[in-house]
Amino acid sequence: MNIKSKICNLLQNIKAKKPLVHHITNYVTVNDCANVALAIGGSPIMADDIGEVEDIVGLSSALVVNMGTLNERTIKSMLTAGKKANALGVPVIFDPVGAGASDLRNRTAQMMINEVELAVIRGNMSEIKSISGLESKTKGVDVSERDIVQAKDLEHASNIARKLSNNLNCVIAITGATDIISDGKKAFFIDNGHPMLSSITGTGCMCTSLIGVYSAVTDDYLSAATAGVSSMGIAGEIAYHKLIKNEEGSGGFRIKLMDSIYRLSADDIMKRGKINEE
Amino acid sequence: MNIKSKICNLLQNIKAKKPLVHHITNYVTVNDCANVALAIGGSPIMADDIGEVEDIVGLSSALVVNMGTLNERTIKSMLTAGKKANALGVPVIFDPVGAGASDLRNRTAQMMINEVELAVIRGNMSEIKSISGLESKTKGVDVSERDIVQAKDLEHASNIARKLSNNLNCVIAITGATDIISDGKKAFFIDNGHPMLSSITGTGCMCTSLIGVYSAVTDDYLSAATAGVSSMGIAGEIAYHKLIKNEEGSGGFRIKLMDSIYRLSADDIMKRGKINEE
Amino acid sequence: MNIKSKICNLLQNIKAKKPLVHHITNYVTVNDCANVALAIGGSPIMADDIGEVEDIVGLSSALVVNMGTLNERTIKSMLTAGKKANALGVPVIFDPVGAGASDLRNRTAQMMINEVELAVIRGNMSEIKSISGLESKTKGVDVSERDIVQAKDLEHASNIARKLSNNLNCVIAITGATDIISDGKKAFFIDNGHPMLSSITGTGCMCTSLIGVYSAVTDDYLSAATAGVSSMGIAGEIAYHKLIKNEEGSGGFRIKLMDSIYRLSADDIMKRGKINEE
Repeated sequence: MNIKSKICNLLQNIKAKKPLVHHITNYVTVNDCANVALAIGGSPIMADDIGEVEDIVGLSSALVVNMGTLNERTIKSMLTAGKKANALGVPVIFDPVGAGASDLRNRTAQMMINEVELAVIRGNMSEIKSISGLESKTKGVDVSERDIVQAKDLEHASNIARKLSNNLNCVIAITGATDIISDGKKAFFIDNGHPMLSSITGTGCMCTSLIGVYSAVTDDYLSAATAGVSSMGIAGEIAYHKLIKNEEGSGGFRIKLMDSIYRLSADDIMKRGKINEE
Repeated sequence: MNIKSKICNLLQNIKAKKPLVHHITNYVTVNDCANVALAIGGSPIMADDIGEVEDIVGLSSALVVNMGTLNERTIKSMLTAGKKANALGVPVIFDPVGAGASDLRNRTAQMMINEVELAVIRGNMSEIKSISGLESKTKGVDVSERDIVQAKDLEHASNIARKLSNNLNCVIAITGATDIISDGKKAFFIDNGHPMLSSITGTGCMCTSLIGVYSAVTDDYLSAATAGVSSMGIAGEIAYHKLIKNEEGSGGFRIKLMDSIYRLSADDIMKRGKINEE
Repeated sequence: MNIKSKICNLLQNIKAKKPLVHHITNYVTVNDCANVALAIGGSPIMADDIGEVEDIVGLSSALVVNMGTLNERTIKSMLTAGKKANALGVPVIFDPVGAGASDLRNRTAQMMINEVELAVIRGNMSEIKSISGLESKTKGVDVSERDIVQAKDLEHASNIARKLSNNLNCVIAITGATDIISDGKKAFFIDNGHPMLSSITGTGCMCTSLIGVYSAVTDDYLSAATAGVSSMGIAGEIAYHKLIKNEEGSGGFRIKLMDSIYRLSADDIMKRGKINEE
């Protein structure tokens, strides 16, 4: 079965199963993450107290860990939840938001990588280079200019993804103008999306949440990551297409993006998906 | 005066008084709760540090406690604020989000019930059964399938509400396809609402916030809870009705829901309200 | 160059530089603050753990400190970040949300004022009076009725702004029906805005974030504060103008406000700006 057909099957499974997806995430985009998980058909639950994360993981079909506004208290919860998820066979999807921007973020990302078996890591090129131990000039939570250029060199970019994937034994998704998803053996390039996705906060986080929902209904995490990333890209295109030009801006785009995820169909994926295997 | 006329009077009082409503709530839906409180005509203030919750309760006309993303720090603040509210005669509205999903949530709900006099508790059937000590198969923060079925047996459901109401001496609101609100003696059934309300996060939390705003202008908490629940249901119907079909989804619905609360009129309540006394 | 031309230049600089603006802010309106910073052309990063705020300030061109949902943990981070910003010459913009509503807020505001050199303080009349040591009858996070009346006495209001500005050696922005911005010597009055801005949460916080983004591209903080306040006011007018009357409410207004910031042009500022020097 080709990748687009696989994604359509996964989408159908989500709608049928409404899987519970535990999030330990940041307080900036948490509402968007909950709404996008609901929009695609999942059931999100956000819980970060160390006294309950193991209980919540026990009810869940996937765990999303996003370090966007990490703090001492929640870092411990991330680790505890991640280990419990490993013990239970619940996939862990990790979003190393802002890796490279502070020692605390670097240490936390390394901790997650070293102590938790991750199913998928999703980040921009600056974040992925940072956790790969490659030099990266980070710019807060957004990709740096230099890393944008490097991401355009697809062979170079896919080598970074493959290498990190093999080192960590997990799927790596690097999102950008062209997205690269690899499990160390295969790699997919995705050419969906629209520049307006970077005009609102949380599209990276929401993409990771979508990967979490897809990962909750399969153990083929390469397909799940490709599904999550392409869903966000396709929805971004549709949302942009529906914008009233010279009238709407990032406010309207954000709403139409959510609408597009809510209405995302197998037909959208088959007709609009621009997914190529390397 | 019948219940719908009472609700209209309360709504008018809210617009006139703009009551301050203190929230200790979760970081997922807090923005929606603040905006819905403003939309109906109240003035929300969110504050959860134990060093200030007593001061803030002292300024407020109602206290909403929502345990959606509880943690060790905020649990203490909930208790302290609840006791201060009791001392001052400020009504406390409690939303036991996800009761049944973890021991921490169960213990916190029991703590609130045992140590604070509550005016209203609002939850879905799974949450209300959990805090009633009845066996419930919880599914995160959403009602479980089995409990949906039980909620359809209105006599059974209203018995659960009445019994808990009598045990705790507070109004119980169980929201679902048909909502049940009881003070242990009377019970109201509400048939407003729309399934799309469950396609976005926070409609339960927002409903509790609305009950908080209504409770801030009356000491008839049965009417206040009925007002809050029916306002959310009616607004959900209007929002759905205004959706551009085959075009908009959960993103547009969320905005139109807020618009509908903002524009909610006595006329909407009188014409659309489907509220029956048992 | 007159003030409106200066604002247009600053806006152009923002679009060119996309400056990183570090926020330590509240969890109620943080998503709105991030989105408004992106909409005007900045790059927001939210980080509040004491273990990383110095690193993040080091990357940033401005620091916004907003005490809307302060707690013991984040108060320490505010102080640490503020001092680091001073050491590095990064401007600090302070929003004393709810000053006057609790001792904790009063103490925190005084701490920020005494221990950090601030570039700009923005608040409503109740908050500014509170931190000036003037008697103020606060009403939670909204301006009190009595302080609204006082704010209408522009001479009186501008004296409050000037005096505080001279005492603290920072720009003071008092937002309300007429906004007053002073650096102790000059004062600007702004007559833009619309009453609907107070029907949604976060317009004050967003205004402060806009001042933060403008302050990131200049050291003329009087102009930066005037730019931020007038941008929010003009966008509010445009958003109201675009509302579908008798149909949309605070939900639609919020989206159109974001769209208007995203689309804000030099032409809007030149044609709509109602900025007068005292």
